[in-house]
This record gives sequence, structure tokens and C-alpha cells, in this order.
Amino acid sequence: MPKRDYYDDPAAPAPNSLVVAVAAVVLDDAGRVLLIQRTDNDLWAIPGGAQDVGETTTAATVREVREETGLDIEITGLVGIYSDPRHVIAYDDGEVRQEFSICLRARPVGGQIAPSSESQHVYWVEPERLDQLNMHRSVRLRIDHGLQQNSEPYLS
Amino acid sequence: MPKRDYYDDPAAPAPNSLVVAVAAVVLDDAGRVLLIQRTDNDLWAIPGGAQDVGETTTAATVREVREETGLDIEITGLVGIYSDPRHVIAYDDGEVRQEFSICLRARPVGGQIAPSSESQHVYWVEPERLDQLNMHRSVRLRIDHGLQQNSEPYLS
Repeated sequence: MPKRDYYDDPAAPAPNSLVVAVAAVVLDDAGRVLLIQRTDNDLWAIPGGAQDVGETTTAATVREVREETGLDIEITGLVGIYSDPRHVIAYDDGEVRQEFSICLRARPVGGQIAPSSESQHVYWVEPERLDQLNMHRSVRLRIDHGLQQNSEPYLS
Repeated sequence: MPKRDYYDDPAAPAPNSLVVAVAAVVLDDAGRVLLIQRTDNDLWAIPGGAQDVGETTTAATVREVREETGLDIEITGLVGIYSDPRHVIAYDDGEVRQEFSICLRARPVGGQIAPSSESQHVYWVEPERLDQLNMHRSVRLRIDHGLQQNSEPYLS
């Protein structure tokens, strides 16, 4: 379980770990975004998780979205690579993980919306409703980039 | 030091590690590619290396290119994300690292060509001369993708 999330905080511990995480901004034909409400902290987020050894980045993203939302997706592009060392997550065991996240753009191709142990709710959300939802600024940044469908990938 | 490189080999050991590596296809105004001849195995390659904890992906790429070629670069885009679990590198200490490489496109903005302990030679190479150079197929793939400047990033 995460101990604490720090963003650009002088009191943050120095990172000692870099783990590949993947996430997806999944958009349907109506331009809505696929969001989950996390079970661990009640925040809204895009589906994602750690890339496992033995799988590709795209396969990891497809798997995480399926696990957390019930939907099958097709990858359509790259939203961005987010690797800001000022954003760290400190865990109880002493690990201080630096942000490293690859965010892909995708569209739904099958499956049925279903919550999971990690996602208490799964919804398609209209972009104009995003401001009403409580989410981490780093998640909102990825969604905003993901909605700009014709722009270059964000690279940090 | 790498023990052995396996590609799509039924005899390859199973990967047990995923480390973020970065690399760059650096192109000059004449369309030439910046290549190094590696010191450890004499193969030709694009500059790159592991992303350190505490730096961004783009900063790691700029640093590695500077260390291995003497040149300062500006990142201009993403060539691709290469994460094929059929490509593994086995090390003497038991680590079997799965390929995970982010390849950026860049252009030179300063510095002077200089070899290093890891790069015995550094050259600007015309694309039509690539076939004459001994290089790993995974490196050639990145260069070929990097030369296609108007195509979508490769995502695996």
C-alpha cells in the first residue's frame, strides 16, 4: 500500500526506485473518458498499473484496463511519457518510487463494464464533468493530454 | 558486463528484471545518423543507457548521448517504445533483463564529437552506409524507425 504521495515537496524523501507503470486514456466514440474510482483512496483515476516482467508495454496496458474496468481495448497511440523525479511515492517498506508512467491512448473494442477489488466504480465520463471529480493532478494532466488527440506525445 | 544476448531463442532463460533504458536516433541536417562503435563488443549502435533514479527520460537521453558522443542534443520526438520479452540479456550475476527501451528522436545543438570508455568511435553515418556496419538487429530496427520522421511512434 502507498504510504504517501509527494509532488514537488521539499520534505519529500529522495527516490530510490524506478518502476515501469502503464496507464490508458480510453475514449469512446462520444468522446467520453473511461474512469475508475479507486478502492484504496476513493480518488478518480484512469486505469493502469505496473508492467510485469514477461509482457510488452501495450500488453500490460490492455491487461490492466481489462482487470480494472472489464473492458477490452485497442491501443491507438501514445499520450505521453511521464517521469518527473519531483513526484515520488513513499511506501511502508522504505521504497521511494519515482514517477515513471507510460500513458497510451485507446478505444474500447469489447467486454462489459465491471468494477474490481481495485476499482469500486467504473464510468464513462464526459470531459465537461471532469472538474467535479476528485483526482490527483497527475491523473488530470494525462487526461487533458489524452483529449488532445492530434497533438504530439508529451515527453518528460 | 552482459553475459549473453538472446532474441526469440527457445533456449533463452526467462526474464526476471525490467530496467528502463533510453536511446536516441540523432539526425543532423544532412540526414546522417549519429552512431558509436561500442567498446565492449565492437558492434555499431545508437547512443543510450539506463535511466537513473532522479532524472527524467529526456534528461537521461541527453546525458547518455553527451557521455558517449560528446554532443549536446535537443529532443524532437519519440521513435518508439521497445519492450519485447522475447529479447533478453543475461548477466553474470543471474539477472535476466527483458528489453525495455524508450528511443527518442533528436538533433545536435552543440558539443564536439568525442569517444568515451564505452564508445571507441563516434561517427555521423549516411543511411545508405548502414548495411555495411555490423550491428544488432534491435539497433537497426530503431534506426529504421527513426529515419521515418513523419510516421507514428512504434509501440510494442
